[in-house]
Amino acid sequence: MSIAPATGGDLENRFRSHYCGRLNPDYENKPVRLAGWIHRKRDHGGLIFIDLRDHTGICQLIVQPEQEELFSRVERLHTESVVVVDGVVVRRSPETVNPKLPSGEIEVVLDDVRVESTAVPLPFPVADELQTSEELRLKYRFLDLRREKIHQNIVFRSQLISKVRRYLEDQGFMEIQTPILTASSPEGARDFLVPSRLHPGKFYALPQAPQQFKQLLMVSGFSRYFQIAPCFRDEDARADRSPGEFYQVDMEMAFIEQEDLFSILEGMFRYLTETMSTKRITQFPFPRLSYRDAMNRFGSDKPDLRVPLEMQDVTDLFEGSSFKVFASNTKKGCCVKAMVLKGRGTESRQFYDKAEKRAKELGAPGLAYVQFREEGPKGPIVKFLSEEELTALTQRLGIETGDVVFFGAGKWERTCKIMGGIREYFSDLFELDRDELSFCWIVDFPMYEYDEARKKIDFSHNPFSMPQGEMEALETQDPLDILAYQYDIVCNGIELSSGAIRNHRPDIMYRAFEIAGYSREEVDQRFGHMIEAFKMGAPPHGGIAPGLDRLVMILRDEQNIREVIAFPMNQQAEDLMMSAPSEVSAEQLDELCLKLELPEEEN
Amino acid sequence: MSIAPATGGDLENRFRSHYCGRLNPDYENKPVRLAGWIHRKRDHGGLIFIDLRDHTGICQLIVQPEQEELFSRVERLHTESVVVVDGVVVRRSPETVNPKLPSGEIEVVLDDVRVESTAVPLPFPVADELQTSEELRLKYRFLDLRREKIHQNIVFRSQLISKVRRYLEDQGFMEIQTPILTASSPEGARDFLVPSRLHPGKFYALPQAPQQFKQLLMVSGFSRYFQIAPCFRDEDARADRSPGEFYQVDMEMAFIEQEDLFSILEGMFRYLTETMSTKRITQFPFPRLSYRDAMNRFGSDKPDLRVPLEMQDVTDLFEGSSFKVFASNTKKGCCVKAMVLKGRGTESRQFYDKAEKRAKELGAPGLAYVQFREEGPKGPIVKFLSEEELTALTQRLGIETGDVVFFGAGKWERTCKIMGGIREYFSDLFELDRDELSFCWIVDFPMYEYDEARKKIDFSHNPFSMPQGEMEALETQDPLDILAYQYDIVCNGIELSSGAIRNHRPDIMYRAFEIAGYSREEVDQRFGHMIEAFKMGAPPHGGIAPGLDRLVMILRDEQNIREVIAFPMNQQAEDLMMSAPSEVSAEQLDELCLKLELPEEEN
Repeated sequence: MSIAPATGGDLENRFRSHYCGRLNPDYENKPVRLAGWIHRKRDHGGLIFIDLRDHTGICQLIVQPEQEELFSRVERLHTESVVVVDGVVVRRSPETVNPKLPSGEIEVVLDDVRVESTAVPLPFPVADELQTSEELRLKYRFLDLRREKIHQNIVFRSQLISKVRRYLEDQGFMEIQTPILTASSPEGARDFLVPSRLHPGKFYALPQAPQQFKQLLMVSGFSRYFQIAPCFRDEDARADRSPGEFYQVDMEMAFIEQEDLFSILEGMFRYLTETMSTKRITQFPFPRLSYRDAMNRFGSDKPDLRVPLEMQDVTDLFEGSSFKVFASNTKKGCCVKAMVLKGRGTESRQFYDKAEKRAKELGAPGLAYVQFREEGPKGPIVKFLSEEELTALTQRLGIETGDVVFFGAGKWERTCKIMGGIREYFSDLFELDRDELSFCWIVDFPMYEYDEARKKIDFSHNPFSMPQGEMEALETQDPLDILAYQYDIVCNGIELSSGAIRNHRPDIMYRAFEIAGYSREEVDQRFGHMIEAFKMGAPPHGGIAPGLDRLVMILRDEQNIREVIAFPMNQQAEDLMMSAPSEVSAEQLDELCLKLELPEEEN
Repeated sequence: MSIAPATGGDLENRFRSHYCGRLNPDYENKPVRLAGWIHRKRDHGGLIFIDLRDHTGICQLIVQPEQEELFSRVERLHTESVVVVDGVVVRRSPETVNPKLPSGEIEVVLDDVRVESTAVPLPFPVADELQTSEELRLKYRFLDLRREKIHQNIVFRSQLISKVRRYLEDQGFMEIQTPILTASSPEGARDFLVPSRLHPGKFYALPQAPQQFKQLLMVSGFSRYFQIAPCFRDEDARADRSPGEFYQVDMEMAFIEQEDLFSILEGMFRYLTETMSTKRITQFPFPRLSYRDAMNRFGSDKPDLRVPLEMQDVTDLFEGSSFKVFASNTKKGCCVKAMVLKGRGTESRQFYDKAEKRAKELGAPGLAYVQFREEGPKGPIVKFLSEEELTALTQRLGIETGDVVFFGAGKWERTCKIMGGIREYFSDLFELDRDELSFCWIVDFPMYEYDEARKKIDFSHNPFSMPQGEMEALETQDPLDILAYQYDIVCNGIELSSGAIRNHRPDIMYRAFEIAGYSREEVDQRFGHMIEAFKMGAPPHGGIAPGLDRLVMILRDEQNIREVIAFPMNQQAEDLMMSAPSEVSAEQLDELCLKLELPEEEN
């Protein structure tokens, strides 16, 4: 796969007639003028070789000692200086051909060199991928961005965004910019605030996401909106989230059902994968897993489906069992889960102990297991199980000699999550295909959950999602049985986005909030302007907002989000290159009617 | 020109089988399901007609009184409610065909209607373009955006941006996002500040433009950058600039000369004009006018070239004249300028008095003029002019009987500007072609000017532009004669952007600043990180950043920037819909270590 930029913009001027990466034997004996950076310089037995780098690639230049004056000038050149050179293209002798370079069959014999910019000694090298501290890399990001891997990441990101745009535009989406100086929202994460000079004491907030604006655009009759949207959250850094700002492919569509959106998104991910990477999508259309199924089978609502491990429910096998630990968890709301690890029944004791340690970290009291060995079942709980139970397990789970079964028992959600954690722990035992993209949709999230602490029913996720069955469901079903038109898209165990079909009906919204204990007045007070908009003719609509940075990370196999952003902040939310944040003048604060109240210095 | 959205995204689902604007007689007798807003409802002799609106257009629905139950339900529907309807397409009778609608040859006889969202009475109508206060429109922007003209403006804006992107990508440009949370810059307009929670007492600033980042991208080896870049300036509102945020087509290219950039920009404007509008570009390539020429001929560095008026220099005609007002302004640095208004020599006295009044507003002591009438030259200064001077003027300026000549005399720049103001004042006498786009480049701006107040040489515009002639010019020329590689793009008298070939050489930059009286230490202190970057191998580069909002305004003939932005703030920098800016909680301020110091309430 080539990610070389388009050639449409090539031009000839006083700086260059050709580009380094595009020279080949067709140009033999042609005079060329090239411009770029001195990538490497080598002195080989009286000849000087230079690798000249421009944005198309690298070309080898050669200076012969006979050209004394030129030779001595070139000798003094520093790597990373910018030069304009004149020379003639010659074929390399067969033994010096470099098959790794597109221009590797030729080199350019220099006639002249002009220095456009002299490089002083650098804080770290560009040509060699030496380990360099991230702090230094961020401080000299302009230099770091010359290095091949990150440079290509940024090119890739740009091309990916361009393809996202083209795909969505072809699907009838329009990109619309929503405000960046907007209102503080009462929900969600911490806002970044911007003091208003014209309105002393008041503040704008940077958007955590353009959620309200995109829904209002639907109310305005734009049928399909998207935006490569900058979003801002004043949260502490994580490996997969930059502190401060990040981008999402923000989308919303009117008059759609869940499946309409799924097929557009699937088409987009397929298009991006097929045109931008060598990766393969496991299954198309993407599997849909209900939240309940995902929890039951994988113990997670963002399962990595590449891991060949699945939980099974064995609750019914232990009804009335004499093994009380299991029997007591066959009542409603509880469960007994089993997970078979093929061929791992004869590991050392340490293997099982470490797994149990992990289970305890995850909050389990312990981790029951049975090894099915040649000599018969073995393990701490075998003595509590009857012959019939062991046989039933063997049949239900398809156990073969040499396997081991792990068990979890307890309240349903908690047990699933613990077993899901164990599944993740064991995923290291399998060699996962890094080129496989195992997408899935998690659907049918519950609308409500029981809040044990506050002893009341509350929303599970987003109160603005449409309940499945709409008003009728709210009026007739047990709230805890109501599902929402809410969904997540997951890839290789990473959640790319949540989304939902929205509740566009004020009557249904008031009722949904009432079930969670909010009065009409409270709803009007907190979400008044959205409700008001919905009262003036709102279409059914829904959307999603896949994280862009995360998508680039997946497609480029990067673990650190700062490798896919041109100018990221560090984990302390500082821009080391620009020295941001920084102190401001007293006059600036006065204009904003603000005063600092700094904490006392410690020590 | 159609700006209907792409059809790629059409889909059939439970809300619709077809789209309002796409129905035509081909669908005769076909059952269709449509969804949209009730645009208008009319009761005509027992029949109800509904105009149903979706994003593709309008379709007429008809309900017959025989369908009693349906009829009574439809009677109760409000305009702007959202409905899903089933019906059958029929041809209209010839006399009821509506040629203004794409679907005007058909109508849909309704079988059923389902209300998806009931609209309450609205603050202003959508279908009729009644005068509505801007305050109300902004408060209910989601409703305002349904109105045809502004809706189409937003669609146009989106499509324009998409075309800008495609054009620039085809030219080898890459879009790269630069930070929005960044550093306060010492230059330019007032920054918006964002307090940092993690670094108490420190602030980010929102970028006034990504100027430094785009230059650093060139230093990083990206050859062509662009960004539809959000920019932020805490400045008071103007008709053509939104308070707060605005967008520019931010661009930068490495290894280019001024003309390379011009031809890419010209190609872009031509492409946008030809594919997006019915307007015509007057001259292609765009004329290049030196700053000096533009001032001499049009008295402005952003002339509207459509106005058929031009100044001429007549300084030499009055050397040694007995008319001291002119003679005294023939010395170096001064001038006498003349501007002929054809066929306006016999206007009433009031005509000339009003022009003089305008000249005085512009700072002139008066406005000399000579009317060339049948009976001979006439006017206040005629008695001071010799026969020879009048003859020489007549010949030089091509004066015919019936013309009038206006004069300005004094210091060069001031005189040019006053006469330029008079030229603009007279532009109302000409009917300008609104469909004509008269682009031009203003080039060769002076690098330095003499600051009368501070009695020293200072930069005229941007200190970071490359001086023409580079170091040699700085070392050998009178600073006031040095020109810069700086340029403006102007259309119909509106400056779309400044741009420059940058000074990428620290040695030339230190010398340029030295001429303006800044020491090396001062330069390092204020612009250290840019200079440091340029010391590590910087390519020659240059760029420009045409204002996007302004471009849309020109192509859509809009005078008010709020007509081309989906969710603009009002002129007091408030978002009336979202209630921004707003008060924040004491906890939020505490977290930021900030305290309000509000001015005492007056009265």
